[in-house]
This record gives sequence, C-alpha cells and structure tokens, in this order.
Amino acid sequence: MKVEILAVGSELLTPYFQDTNSLYLTERLNDLGIEVMFKTIVGDEPEALTGALRGALGRADLLFVMGGLGPTEDDRTRERVADVLGRNLVFDKGILQKIRARFRRRNIPMPAPNIKQAYIIEGAEALENTRGTAPGLWLSAAGKTVVLLPGPPAELKPMFEGSVWPRLSEFRKGDLERRKLKVAGLTESRIESLIWDLYPREPGLTVTTLAYPGQIELHLTAVCRPSQNTGKKKLDLLVRKLRGRLGQNIFSETGEDLEQVIGRLLREHGLTLAVAESCSGGFLSHRITNVPGSSDYFLEGVIVYSNKAKRDLLGVPERTIEMHGAVSAPVARAMATGIRERAQSTYGLSITGIAGPGGGTEQKPVGLVFTALAGERGVRVEKNLFLGTRDQVKFQSSQKSLDMLRRRILNERRRKE
Amino acid sequence: MKVEILAVGSELLTPYFQDTNSLYLTERLNDLGIEVMFKTIVGDEPEALTGALRGALGRADLLFVMGGLGPTEDDRTRERVADVLGRNLVFDKGILQKIRARFRRRNIPMPAPNIKQAYIIEGAEALENTRGTAPGLWLSAAGKTVVLLPGPPAELKPMFEGSVWPRLSEFRKGDLERRKLKVAGLTESRIESLIWDLYPREPGLTVTTLAYPGQIELHLTAVCRPSQNTGKKKLDLLVRKLRGRLGQNIFSETGEDLEQVIGRLLREHGLTLAVAESCSGGFLSHRITNVPGSSDYFLEGVIVYSNKAKRDLLGVPERTIEMHGAVSAPVARAMATGIRERAQSTYGLSITGIAGPGGGTEQKPVGLVFTALAGERGVRVEKNLFLGTRDQVKFQSSQKSLDMLRRRILNERRRKE
Repeated sequence: MKVEILAVGSELLTPYFQDTNSLYLTERLNDLGIEVMFKTIVGDEPEALTGALRGALGRADLLFVMGGLGPTEDDRTRERVADVLGRNLVFDKGILQKIRARFRRRNIPMPAPNIKQAYIIEGAEALENTRGTAPGLWLSAAGKTVVLLPGPPAELKPMFEGSVWPRLSEFRKGDLERRKLKVAGLTESRIESLIWDLYPREPGLTVTTLAYPGQIELHLTAVCRPSQNTGKKKLDLLVRKLRGRLGQNIFSETGEDLEQVIGRLLREHGLTLAVAESCSGGFLSHRITNVPGSSDYFLEGVIVYSNKAKRDLLGVPERTIEMHGAVSAPVARAMATGIRERAQSTYGLSITGIAGPGGGTEQKPVGLVFTALAGERGVRVEKNLFLGTRDQVKFQSSQKSLDMLRRRILNERRRKE
Repeated sequence: MKVEILAVGSELLTPYFQDTNSLYLTERLNDLGIEVMFKTIVGDEPEALTGALRGALGRADLLFVMGGLGPTEDDRTRERVADVLGRNLVFDKGILQKIRARFRRRNIPMPAPNIKQAYIIEGAEALENTRGTAPGLWLSAAGKTVVLLPGPPAELKPMFEGSVWPRLSEFRKGDLERRKLKVAGLTESRIESLIWDLYPREPGLTVTTLAYPGQIELHLTAVCRPSQNTGKKKLDLLVRKLRGRLGQNIFSETGEDLEQVIGRLLREHGLTLAVAESCSGGFLSHRITNVPGSSDYFLEGVIVYSNKAKRDLLGVPERTIEMHGAVSAPVARAMATGIRERAQSTYGLSITGIAGPGGGTEQKPVGLVFTALAGERGVRVEKNLFLGTRDQVKFQSSQKSLDMLRRRILNERRRKE
C-alpha cells in the first residue's frame, strides 16, 4: 500500500516555517506498520495545488492532505480536491450549526467567511474538529482513500487521534513495537564497534541510530502481525543483547532524559543535589530544573564566572586559582566540595572549562572541561575534551556531570544492597 | 520561473529526521528574488525517485535535488537523473584523483564503492565538494536547469555558497532586501492593533509575523530590481513608520537576541550584572552566558530553589518569606538587592515564581512570576502572569528580566546625555 502526505500552505515554502505535522503523522502510521512513501509541500496557488493533488492521487492508495481548510480566500484544499475528483461541494447544515455554536460559546458573531467551512465534498464523511472550526474530511474514490486535515497541529492531532486513528484499522499491517535506548559515556563509533553484529537483517525489525554530541539513541522497531507476538519477542531479545554489550552506559529504555533519570534516582533515595557552574553558565541547573518537582531534591546552584565569585561563594582558595588556573582539576574539586558544604546537600557537582569560541590556548584549548562530583565517599574529577560549538560544549558538560552522578548513585546503591 | 526542491533519502520519511536544507536554500534563493514553488521528499527506492524526478522536471524550470550522491548502493540520485534525462554517466578521471587525494590526506585507502562518485552525468559540470567526497552537478537540459547537491548540510552549504550561488546570477530577479525587527513587551494582538494599517499591499513588499511567547518578530522583505533602489527605500520608510508606532519595544533590527543586545549595552558602558533565579532555574544565566565573551560583564548567578538558599546566599529575611511567601514582590526585591550587593555588580536581576505544571494555587497560580531589577537608582519589581508550559514560563521570565534591564540602561543613558 502506498501512502503519501501532502502539506498545503504558502508559509511552508518560506524559510521560516517547517512542516512538523508529517513527522507526527509518520510516527502514528508507523505504529500501524504503515510506511510513508512520499511527502509533498505546496503553496496556496490553485494551479500548483491541483497539480500536486493529481500527482499524489496518481501514485497513492492512502493520501493525507493537511492545511488549506480555513475560512479565507487562500484556503482552497476542499475546492481543489473536489475538482480533481470530479465531485461537488455540498452544504451540511449540521456542520454549520456546530461552527455557529462554537462562536456563540465565545460570544462572538460568526464571521461570514466561515460559512464556507460547512461545505463538504460529496460522499465524504466529516471529521469533528474539537479545537477549531474547520472539520476534516474522509473520503473514498476509485479504490483510494483521501483524508483532509486542518494545518494547525493543535487541531490536527486531536482530530487524528479521535476520528482518523479508529478508521485506519482496516489499513493496519500489524502493531509496531518500539524501544528507545539512550546511551551516555560512549561515542557513536565505539557503540558501533560493540554492537555491529547485532543489527537485525530480517525485514520488519529495524535499528535507527541518532547521534548527538554526548548522547546516542538507538530506536528499535518491530512489526508484529495481529495476534502474534514474535516481533515483540525478537525485540526483547535484541534489547537484552544490547544491554549485555552496553551495560550501564544505557541510561534510559523509556525515553527519559538524563535529568529525569537522576531526578528519579535522587527522589527515590531521598538524596539532594547542589551545583556550581562556570563555563556551562547555568545550563546544568536549567536542565535539572526542567523536571517538574525538582525543588524536592535540587537545593541550589551557583554560576561563578568571576574568580571573586569562586572564592566568595565556594571558598575556592585564591592560591589554587593562581597556581593551576580557573580551568583546572583542583579548582573543579574545590568547587564541588564548596557547593556541597554550602548547601549541605548529599552531592555537589561542578563544571569549569572553556566553552569557546574564544579563550582557548595551546595548553588549555576550547572544549577542555573539568567536571567534578563530591559526595560522602569523596570527590571524583574528570578531564574532558569536548568538540563542537559553545552550545554543544555546554550540553556535553552538563551531560557528563549528570552521568557521573547517575553512575555514582547506582554504584552506591548496589554496594548497599 | 518555477523553482522546486527535491530532497532524497529514506531517513527523511521516518519520524526522526526533518529536511532542513530546504529552509536554507529557500532563504538564499529568496535573496535573489526567487521563490520556491514546490518541495518534494522521497526515499531511496528507485521507482519512487524516478517518479518524483519526472514530476519535478515536468513542472520546474530550475530544480534542486539534494541527497543520494553517496557511495553506497542506496545512493541513486546520479543514476536516476541520468536515466530520466536519457543521458549516460561518464567517468571523470579528475574527480577520482580528488577523491583519492582526500583519502590519502587522512591516511585511509579509498574504499572501492567511492569510485562511483567519479561518474558524472554527460554534459554536466562538477561542483567541488570541499567537505566530502561527493561532487555536486550542474546541468542544463531542454531549457531546464538541474542542480544536484549532497545531503549533509555541512557539505551542501559550502558547495552552494562557493559553486552554485555564482552560477545563479542569470536567474536573479533582483536583490532581496530584508529587515528583521524583534519586539518584546507587547503581545501579538497589541502589535496588530498598532500597525495593522502599515501592512504593505504592493507586490514585492512583504511583512511576515512570527510570534513566540515573549517575543514577536516582524520579517520584512522587498525585492529590488537590479540597479534600482526603490525597494530598499520603501523598506526603510516602512521601518521608520514601524519604529514610530512600536518605539522602544523594538529591541533589535539586526537579528540580535535580547541577551546579545544587553551584552552589547553592558560592555559598551562598562557595566556589570549578577542574577538570582528561583523558578527560571538557571535559564536566565544560561541565556546570558550563551553570548561569547559574557564573562566580561556577567559576574555571577545563583539559583535559589530552597528558602535556606534564599536566606544564606542572598540575605532574604526569614520573616519576609514567612509573611509574603517565596513567590512575592518583597522576596523578588530582596533577591535583586541581595545578589547585587553580594556580587558588587552594577545591576542585580531576580526571578521568583511558579513555573508549573504543579504548585499553583488560586491566589498564586502557575505562571505568576515576579521579576525585579536592582541598580544605583533603586529597585523595580514587576508582577507577571505568563501562560504556557514550564519551558515557556521559564523563557518568558528570562525575557522579561532582560527587557527590564535593557530599558533601564537605555533610559539611564538617555538621562545622562
């Protein structure tokens, strides 16, 4: 079965807007074992839109058309689809009543152009829009199925989940089982060398690697035919093998970010955290506090850009900075113990380094970052050399710190058990 | 002239990868006064790729095909384009030498599959790839121009700038003049009500509004015919009128972010800054330190999630927190003066509020945020009610703080002049 997505809207042909709906649609179609063959993006211009519709209907068995269902003159999807299929637009009183009711609830008179949205293509079923005025349409023609959806993601998603998903069961090839393993502490090439022989060769089982500086994700999928669970079993077996090779480097199998993982660990064991940042400039604290409820375990953070702040806030001795420089293992160590003592937290994390693009020297190049973790059982300092932009150095610094904390908590728990 | 972009690669039909090259290409084409009419995304499957190429060549005068130039079996763009145009692939000894030299420099023997990249379509000019092995191709056929570019953005961009841009001059419709006004402190609908009558109605002059919580951008463009500057003049006039309506709410006309603007102001006038954050959790410091060289004016930041930290680090009186709560104007005030005194900085900024999703009450709902600015001339506290997710509340809190600082510096400078 051939499936296509056609996104309509002149704004999608500017440098400013990206079609993100199709990623969501693709993910949900993949869940049914259905792959997308083709995506097209076209503006509101009638001739181009007609051409795109003719092309897509010539190829696809199932076509999703998104956008162009609004009330303005530029919104021409309904008309063009009707025209290409040789059908009429018919007025639907029930839809008009719903649109009127929507405006009435907001105490606004219905603008005249919205009447247009009550016309549907002959033979089509209207799909309810719980978040806006434009109904979607579902229609069959010459053995093909065409689904018209509104462009705004906030309207498209509920309509898809509520009205389209149930109707797609006839196209279902099976269920898609997914696993998402997130890995820290290994490079992409190191992971490749550890797992290359595990990549599945059979159809229906896939592994996609997404590599970011500081984080590698393995997305595994298996198509399971209805009422069979061989796909699921194969996937579980593959995950077990990957665990055997990658071990504790896998920090999540459920899609959690590292800040969520350490948040869960800290909360579960009643532990607290404070951080001291130099080159990461608050980004580590920002990530930690992105987790709702983080105030339960995150006590405080300091960003000590100046040497004075390192001294005043953390008690880093003047002499240590003079002897080793602000970017050094001894300063990282003093920062981690300093913030832990100040906050009286279980753990103290610190980061000092050179984020770039300026400020590097031959001995201390851009990307040189010391990360330290202080706890009951002492301080550990690591020397890192991160590649990339200022942003990427900040991210990798925070990632490394959170990962040091994760491994420490896991190992301490293991020892206690 | 009809221009199309065709992106090739099966990964672009998964939920994980987005075609971002086309945004860049569109922006550069727009610079020449050329608009994009159509975008297509297709996988590596030969039949679908052939179909997409036939469709695009049937419509477009100028076609960009991106991706599928690599050395593997899946990379079929060269072969399919040659086939659709009825041309042969011919071996180019010079290209092979360049590919070999590239591997030699890295001390790696050239893998056999790379030989494929030395074949070009008959009649095409090779475009040099300074960042990879796959050359691009430029060819004319039946009055149409086809440009083949590699998929990786790091290879595509230098090739476009170095080899494609100079060749595009014949298609140039004029130069595109751009202005980007960034606005803070006004909502989108307030801006609409102030400037609605200024929206240009003549062709060639456009205003696109991009609205984010806390920041509205007005992107203005004018096409100028070669050797005329009427477009530029019209644009300058429009900008002057917008300035008249929006005044100091415009914080940038050059694309600078707010953290860059305040960084420039602080540096120019030899001023320094320190910040104290509660609900924004380090995001304000993160933004400030995203600007390279910010250590020149940013002294320190503290993230005071606990009441103890507010007291110990900033000297916020216990009694003030007890009487008014941690989220209150008096606490915001004490935090701003506290950090300013501690750091001995020109300015102190503070944020305390409820970022959500939990923690709200009827009297202090999610999104309630107090922002304060302390300086020589006293403290100002503002009470805000931000809408949106935790992320959006954090962003708006930081935006409001930076904007308070910007207005203060501008007004103090004006007073001194």
